[in-house]
Amino acid sequence: MEKEHDFIPERTKWKRQLFRIIFKSDTRLGKAFDLALLVLILLSTSIVMMESVSVFDAKLHLLFVVLEIIITIFFTVEYVLRIITIRNKRSYIFSFFGIIDFLAILPFYLSLFIPITKYFLILRMLRMLRVFRIFNLLDFMNDGYFIVRALKNSSRKIYIFLLFLVIFCVIVGSLMFMVEGHREGFESIPQSIYWAVVTVTTVGYGDVSPVTPLGKFLSILLMLSGYSIIAVPTGIVTAEMRNKRQNLEKVCPRCGNEDIDDDARYCKKCGEKIV
Amino acid sequence: MEKEHDFIPERTKWKRQLFRIIFKSDTRLGKAFDLALLVLILLSTSIVMMESVSVFDAKLHLLFVVLEIIITIFFTVEYVLRIITIRNKRSYIFSFFGIIDFLAILPFYLSLFIPITKYFLILRMLRMLRVFRIFNLLDFMNDGYFIVRALKNSSRKIYIFLLFLVIFCVIVGSLMFMVEGHREGFESIPQSIYWAVVTVTTVGYGDVSPVTPLGKFLSILLMLSGYSIIAVPTGIVTAEMRNKRQNLEKVCPRCGNEDIDDDARYCKKCGEKIV
Amino acid sequence: MEKEHDFIPERTKWKRQLFRIIFKSDTRLGKAFDLALLVLILLSTSIVMMESVSVFDAKLHLLFVVLEIIITIFFTVEYVLRIITIRNKRSYIFSFFGIIDFLAILPFYLSLFIPITKYFLILRMLRMLRVFRIFNLLDFMNDGYFIVRALKNSSRKIYIFLLFLVIFCVIVGSLMFMVEGHREGFESIPQSIYWAVVTVTTVGYGDVSPVTPLGKFLSILLMLSGYSIIAVPTGIVTAEMRNKRQNLEKVCPRCGNEDIDDDARYCKKCGEKIV
Amino acid sequence: MEKEHDFIPERTKWKRQLFRIIFKSDTRLGKAFDLALLVLILLSTSIVMMESVSVFDAKLHLLFVVLEIIITIFFTVEYVLRIITIRNKRSYIFSFFGIIDFLAILPFYLSLFIPITKYFLILRMLRMLRVFRIFNLLDFMNDGYFIVRALKNSSRKIYIFLLFLVIFCVIVGSLMFMVEGHREGFESIPQSIYWAVVTVTTVGYGDVSPVTPLGKFLSILLMLSGYSIIAVPTGIVTAEMRNKRQNLEKVCPRCGNEDIDDDARYCKKCGEKIV
Repeated sequence: MEKEHDFIPERTKWKRQLFRIIFKSDTRLGKAFDLALLVLILLSTSIVMMESVSVFDAKLHLLFVVLEIIITIFFTVEYVLRIITIRNKRSYIFSFFGIIDFLAILPFYLSLFIPITKYFLILRMLRMLRVFRIFNLLDFMNDGYFIVRALKNSSRKIYIFLLFLVIFCVIVGSLMFMVEGHREGFESIPQSIYWAVVTVTTVGYGDVSPVTPLGKFLSILLMLSGYSIIAVPTGIVTAEMRNKRQNLEKVCPRCGNEDIDDDARYCKKCGEKIV
Repeated sequence: MEKEHDFIPERTKWKRQLFRIIFKSDTRLGKAFDLALLVLILLSTSIVMMESVSVFDAKLHLLFVVLEIIITIFFTVEYVLRIITIRNKRSYIFSFFGIIDFLAILPFYLSLFIPITKYFLILRMLRMLRVFRIFNLLDFMNDGYFIVRALKNSSRKIYIFLLFLVIFCVIVGSLMFMVEGHREGFESIPQSIYWAVVTVTTVGYGDVSPVTPLGKFLSILLMLSGYSIIAVPTGIVTAEMRNKRQNLEKVCPRCGNEDIDDDARYCKKCGEKIV
Repeated sequence: MEKEHDFIPERTKWKRQLFRIIFKSDTRLGKAFDLALLVLILLSTSIVMMESVSVFDAKLHLLFVVLEIIITIFFTVEYVLRIITIRNKRSYIFSFFGIIDFLAILPFYLSLFIPITKYFLILRMLRMLRVFRIFNLLDFMNDGYFIVRALKNSSRKIYIFLLFLVIFCVIVGSLMFMVEGHREGFESIPQSIYWAVVTVTTVGYGDVSPVTPLGKFLSILLMLSGYSIIAVPTGIVTAEMRNKRQNLEKVCPRCGNEDIDDDARYCKKCGEKIV
Repeated sequence: MEKEHDFIPERTKWKRQLFRIIFKSDTRLGKAFDLALLVLILLSTSIVMMESVSVFDAKLHLLFVVLEIIITIFFTVEYVLRIITIRNKRSYIFSFFGIIDFLAILPFYLSLFIPITKYFLILRMLRMLRVFRIFNLLDFMNDGYFIVRALKNSSRKIYIFLLFLVIFCVIVGSLMFMVEGHREGFESIPQSIYWAVVTVTTVGYGDVSPVTPLGKFLSILLMLSGYSIIAVPTGIVTAEMRNKRQNLEKVCPRCGNEDIDDDARYCKKCGEKIV
């Protein structure tokens, strides 16, 4: 997922070696390093989670703190080494993984001043996205890209859909506020909008639900709407995924058929030989 | 989204200039005007929302009222100017945005007589749909049209589906009313229908849920149905979206046919090659 | 939706005329009759619903009973006339609408012996499916058929999917029964299966929800499963709907392109003239 | 679903006959045997379920135990006979159905030592998957394969999607833990993650729901996300199902290629015309 950061021969030997260990996975040491990182990420996120559970924290607070310090020191050293060994430092620092690597250590230092920010250490989990590289899972990576690309390509349509949906929920929420007349859960328009979103997305917590017959009738209309318009994002993404083909260049020279499998030797529509 | 309302040279100069500022976004003043409108819409809807929250209303009631009067006066003047400066007044007044512009001021004047109607001011939010024009977001507009068109084209099928679904819910609700025998939440058939809709749409508030074993068994059947038939609206819209073209610019150079699919290599009307 | 029941000239004149009024909608009287039926159906179902609401029933019980008797007499006469006037009686009686017409009157007579069956009168609502014929809504009927056909064609796949799902829910429910150890809502395996279905279909009433950490963890897995496998029925129906094309015969004689619009004169793939 | 386990003539006659009865369904005895099995499976799972209901267990405990012993003895004998009569024992024992057959008896013997494992007898239900073979429901089996294959083929994409989703839920849950500040249901990060999954999958039990305005606002964002990204698994599976052929019989008469799409007119391997 990170661009190739080639090194030039002038670099000192240890930098080149370290670069290979830290950034690549094609050596034994490189693989071991990546694996160690993965273990530390999992350990670190587990610790953050367990620290939040008062039962565990009461017993093991000191252990958690010590482990967190050690892991953070390790991650910090690693981050510094990444910057040192790479040639195009700027491009790394502002790359997707560069930012994540930074966010994985920042909360610890911040938490020395603002304790609550400690929990942002959970962002370390994002580093797990590198996992596919470690195990050389090329197919998985391709599939990951496939999903990300399909979401990216349909994002504009989905944003507009969400804009429509939000306007719809605001209006329905206000209407419901007038109908349910300040009852519990409908004390204000924002509250009613919250209810409208809970309903239209078919989440339906039930912490707020209509009481009056008219309110229930409106709810029914809203639920049926939600049940129907869930088709919109689904349709958008599905259409997008169908559009994406593995091999977009292949096309039959005679009939223009574009649906040509990778293993095809003849066009399945007109029988023309595919070169 | 509104049709071009061309002006003819006989119109006085100020009318023409005002028309350009109010209706168009291609001059600096026109853009500033649209932006000001957008800010006022957001401000106005925020005020309506906050007014409904008793904590805010208690403190800032006067401010809210004054701001609302000012904004409404502005919107009223704007609406009158729109009618004055446009040539085809009738067509504007009954256009989608003409009606919305009117609905954006009506509730205020109505609320002088019927206070509760004040909250209909939230309809002002619909004016936000013009936002794409302001920022010249042609791609977004196209995507918006895409969604609206797909919904429009599949609306008939969805209405029929909803008719089926409503009949289904009425029957299931009545059945459940007999099964759960007047228990809480199933006091009457309309109540039971409400429950059936809540269940089949997978909203599941939980304010009403079956108690008897037979009722639970029926619920299971209903849930499995709902889980399966959500496929219907999704299938309808997805099929519709696949049918639609994404590229609205394509046009046949020979016969001017604009209905050209994305995968077309020849015009389906005149057989001309599409480049 | 009902097959043409042609009459032969030997039939007496009044039978032929009545047949036309009752079964067809192409005369003024026939339309009026269908409309009257529609009104009566809506009135009748409304009465059944309102009767179940104790507030209304207390006040208007007598009115409801009288109206129901009148409507049922009317429906009975109509049913008898349908049988008399039609030639192929057997085929009508066992047709979809023939059965519905019968079910629309049966509950009333049954309720004289078993009062609770009265509520089955709600089945009258199914007669509303004839509504499309009344208004000559050919497009709507076609769309209705489209949905029914798509569901029918994919029903076998959906049944198998539901069988898989039920087995899955039974196993998960039993597992949960062991995990949550007889807690409230998980008192027995059937109860736990009910919870599993509520969860996997994303209904989520909340009347039963996991309490132990392990139970919550299992729930998370189950919810993620439900969220993913909802894709299966959707995919089945969508694929089915895409397969159905309006004009299945049209195909380009040169390149075999089957995606040919109704208004196409040339193949959009190879430019061949479509005859 | 199990591979053909051919027998060779050297086998003794009774082995061959038993093999045919137990493994095949093409004789009267074989059909009867399969049917008897199906009844026993249904009976056995019903008993396990009813045993878990205290009302039934109190009355019929002894009956349940006796029946279970009998059925298990039968299943054990059957399992042993399957191993004896089949030639390739190893391949059967480790096949899908071989393992299920074993799991169908194991819990009983385990429960003699660890009582709770008794409920794993519910796994017997998986044996029902053989039901299609019994009734020679070839179409159903094909459809079952179709679903399994579509899920298998899209499983890698779905796993990645779930990985993304889990990381997303962990981060959102942690954020919510900070926002809702240790309130009920948000006592720890794992708890908050549970809530995030409940929300994003649109299950929405309502056992945990946000209380603070900021928490509700975040919930709205999360619900809208969940409502949108449900499109991803749906899109994946739908695209997969579209790719798959429905007609498994089609084969190229010249080169024997069996991978022939439904819309193919020519073999993609050798260019032969498909009739």
